[in-house]
Amino acid sequence: MLTYAVVGTGAIGGYYGAKLARAGREVHFLLHNDYDYVREHGLRVNSCDGDFALPQVHAYGDVAAMPQADVVLVGLKTTNEHLLRTLLPPLLHAGTLVVLIQNGIGVEPDVQEWFPSQPLAAGLAFICSSKTEPGVISHQCYGSINLGNYSCTDESFFASVLADFIAAGIDAHEVNYLEARWRKAVWNMPFNGMTVALQTQTDQLVKHPATRQLIREQMMEVVGAAHALGIETINEDFVEKMLAMTDDMVPYSPSMRLDYDYRRPMEIYYLYTRPIADARAAGFEMPRLEMLERELLFMSR
Amino acid sequence: MLTYAVVGTGAIGGYYGAKLARAGREVHFLLHNDYDYVREHGLRVNSCDGDFALPQVHAYGDVAAMPQADVVLVGLKTTNEHLLRTLLPPLLHAGTLVVLIQNGIGVEPDVQEWFPSQPLAAGLAFICSSKTEPGVISHQCYGSINLGNYSCTDESFFASVLADFIAAGIDAHEVNYLEARWRKAVWNMPFNGMTVALQTQTDQLVKHPATRQLIREQMMEVVGAAHALGIETINEDFVEKMLAMTDDMVPYSPSMRLDYDYRRPMEIYYLYTRPIADARAAGFEMPRLEMLERELLFMSR
Repeated sequence: MLTYAVVGTGAIGGYYGAKLARAGREVHFLLHNDYDYVREHGLRVNSCDGDFALPQVHAYGDVAAMPQADVVLVGLKTTNEHLLRTLLPPLLHAGTLVVLIQNGIGVEPDVQEWFPSQPLAAGLAFICSSKTEPGVISHQCYGSINLGNYSCTDESFFASVLADFIAAGIDAHEVNYLEARWRKAVWNMPFNGMTVALQTQTDQLVKHPATRQLIREQMMEVVGAAHALGIETINEDFVEKMLAMTDDMVPYSPSMRLDYDYRRPMEIYYLYTRPIADARAAGFEMPRLEMLERELLFMSR
Repeated sequence: MLTYAVVGTGAIGGYYGAKLARAGREVHFLLHNDYDYVREHGLRVNSCDGDFALPQVHAYGDVAAMPQADVVLVGLKTTNEHLLRTLLPPLLHAGTLVVLIQNGIGVEPDVQEWFPSQPLAAGLAFICSSKTEPGVISHQCYGSINLGNYSCTDESFFASVLADFIAAGIDAHEVNYLEARWRKAVWNMPFNGMTVALQTQTDQLVKHPATRQLIREQMMEVVGAAHALGIETINEDFVEKMLAMTDDMVPYSPSMRLDYDYRRPMEIYYLYTRPIADARAAGFEMPRLEMLERELLFMSR
């Protein structure tokens, strides 16, 4: 049976780790602020799919005390990406799969550079959840995760990780890594930054004709970048689908808006700077998203 | 001796009209909110070049009462451009020169469409002034005006208007109409909107590397549009000169920022929508300034 470690036991990493633990998997949680609380009281998930509690979990305040794991789920904000250089080594054996459940584009190549022979995967979570108090994850809706294999050559091992997620009641699928990252960027790049820049929510942006058109153009910049990178399967139909989906959503503040409002650092680098640079290296410019990046850099001064 | 009418006796129209009146020209002022005050007390200019008062001026609350003039100085905000269709006719004889001392690009063609045979000129004011209380214009610095002939075929008449400005102690020059409008747009388009979008002042925008680069790119979009329209004399050197000039300026809030702060309508159409459309018609896209236009439209909702 595979063993798991969760680095960054927040709204995302905490949710998937708790689901796996409830299903009987051995999961070791790295905690920071709420280490003392969780060690004593465990984790609780208040979920739209039914609440559950894990009164006792393997909780740690320091990676040095953690055992090696077969799978590490990384739920850190990418603004802390550099911490992985010191957080990961104690948890890794040669075959440990590191699943980066993180926003943006470029985390896998960077982590791979730090750990050249480690198997890596992207975890693309479609979930609304938040950590509202110590040890409590509030899961409002959705909850699926797409796993994209970045550098795991052991296909049956990768399949067994996916099977563990599914056995834990998680809607999990294997996807093409690069396509999935760019597909998610179609929604993420416009809405994360624009809700900050215009201090608004998703519903207002798609309702006003000027910003709806701008969001569409920004989405088309992501599609153009994907094409330049050889990903032909993301197209204008998907853009229209994302707009229509947003029309049907409740007014929503993406994670970057919450980060800005709570004066936390914004994930500008992996959400904007890096994909813009990747697109440019492939000969494609993203002027509107680059302008947004610069507005965000100014706002975070 | 030429007679003058001022439509929109505000910080700009009021200043130039008052200078001409002080120099002995016959000037008829159309007033709105402060008509009663000015009829009784006249106009006062508190100026960096020396204060002066005009205890009695030709003041009107209604164009129907005004005589025809040889020159009409239009100082209206372009958000009221449509009012010219009814305000101008009583003031015009066949040869009246209408000088549009207004922001942006496209006012002359629009006014020409409404008054097809009327001689028109652009007035490009380089001035810091404001109307702080009824009948009082506060002139902080600068004060020059460039006159660009749009459709006046009587060159000696045009020259005599210019001579009147100079005789009134105004630093006035004749310039190429279209080049002057686009040259002014190099500074105006980036800074007016960006100080609103990022709720800041000019000094902050040129100080932060991200926005300095963005402002430079936006200026280069204006240069590119000008080139597409056949105006080759505006170039990258001018962009660097505008940035350097802004470095040396005191922290400044352009007129659009003041309009936004005081909840007045913003001049989005002639400052953004129209020049962007003119550039597109010539085959040139301005994605960053178009994005700014859309942000401003959203903010003015």
